[in-house]
Amino acid sequence: MALRVAILTISDAGSRGERADTSGDAIAAWAAERRYTLAERTLVADETAAIASVLVTWADSDRADLILTTGGTGLTARDVTPEATRAVLDKEAPGIAEALRMAAYPRFPRAALSRGTAGVRARTLIVNLPGSPGGVRDGLAVLDALVEHGVELVRGGRMDH
Amino acid sequence: MALRVAILTISDAGSRGERADTSGDAIAAWAAERRYTLAERTLVADETAAIASVLVTWADSDRADLILTTGGTGLTARDVTPEATRAVLDKEAPGIAEALRMAAYPRFPRAALSRGTAGVRARTLIVNLPGSPGGVRDGLAVLDALVEHGVELVRGGRMDH
Amino acid sequence: MALRVAILTISDAGSRGERADTSGDAIAAWAAERRYTLAERTLVADETAAIASVLVTWADSDRADLILTTGGTGLTARDVTPEATRAVLDKEAPGIAEALRMAAYPRFPRAALSRGTAGVRARTLIVNLPGSPGGVRDGLAVLDALVEHGVELVRGGRMDH
Repeated sequence: MALRVAILTISDAGSRGERADTSGDAIAAWAAERRYTLAERTLVADETAAIASVLVTWADSDRADLILTTGGTGLTARDVTPEATRAVLDKEAPGIAEALRMAAYPRFPRAALSRGTAGVRARTLIVNLPGSPGGVRDGLAVLDALVEHGVELVRGGRMDH
Repeated sequence: MALRVAILTISDAGSRGERADTSGDAIAAWAAERRYTLAERTLVADETAAIASVLVTWADSDRADLILTTGGTGLTARDVTPEATRAVLDKEAPGIAEALRMAAYPRFPRAALSRGTAGVRARTLIVNLPGSPGGVRDGLAVLDALVEHGVELVRGGRMDH
Repeated sequence: MALRVAILTISDAGSRGERADTSGDAIAAWAAERRYTLAERTLVADETAAIASVLVTWADSDRADLILTTGGTGLTARDVTPEATRAVLDKEAPGIAEALRMAAYPRFPRAALSRGTAGVRARTLIVNLPGSPGGVRDGLAVLDALVEHGVELVRGGRMDH
């Protein structure tokens, strides 16, 4: 399946050029291995308006089938990715976020602290991944088993109209 | 325990007479095996107002101890069952929906895409099951271990007043 | 790590002096074993305003790093702890509540009926535990693996400002 994937990295340090986007690179490598198209990739600071704006622009112009965010899902005051994402979703899919946490939990209990969400806006599936490269890797392994079917539902359902 | 069970099937194709209600039948058979009373059973299209209206009517007139819905929990544009249900719940019980997804997930990762919810309205416990017969069967196996106790709490708690 | 822990027991029967606070005692013993400070401890009835008021007072005056509640997370009409907690959270951390339920679920399926939540207000992490001593014990075992890191994030994140 020829998914168009967009990557949004959310990182204050990254936006100041103080940290390489290793997690975004891991998502791009995952997409390339599956021959998915990298439709968009950018990096913003941990700011609600900036995050929401990118998600809305990409989803509403149908630039990608799947937007993966990385970063901003934790418990610090600057972590606002789940709220910014939820604010722009048409419908939330809490089970995707539950699966991401629960798959990592047995080996890495701190995964339960991740507050990420997932869902649909327009014809795009959006999933928040954690910020750490390890969390991204674990999350992508979970998505491998369900994300193509998820995108089919999101796009097929709309095409039924 | 003599539960009164009501079944609400949510299906556009079913409402047009284009598809047999196999999932509703599976719930009815499950109830019969346990000698639960089938209090109500109907089928509506994937329309928020229609779904909410049936749930409110059944719960507020105390027609059933347990309402099980099937269908409309997916990611397509027509899937609105979770939102319609949440809109009429007095209190949400997210753990029931989590258990339904997570019990199926190891064998069937796509279960994580189901967006169903559960909770209480008036003195009735309401649970969204998936639309597929397999998803219903897996869900009913989960409910076997907790639904009678759940109904006792919902009804006992109210009778304390 | 020298956590300051506050315990809020929510119980109608306890507030009338009709039941000993065994669950609150279990939390206090857990804290003492870890050499955490018991910063506050009180008991209120299952009333939304009373619960919210205690949480706000303790969090906004920075009396504790971690507030653990016990009670009021079930399905009866009097169970309002999750709603009262959610109303005062700055950000919700659903994964903590999921982990509490899912860790207990295999041995005790009724854990799925618990409606507790968790999250952050100001610089305090708040977690709803179930009301039963067994539920509290299971929940504290889950928290052992993640709560110190959670508090570090909550407080460290704020100190970054």
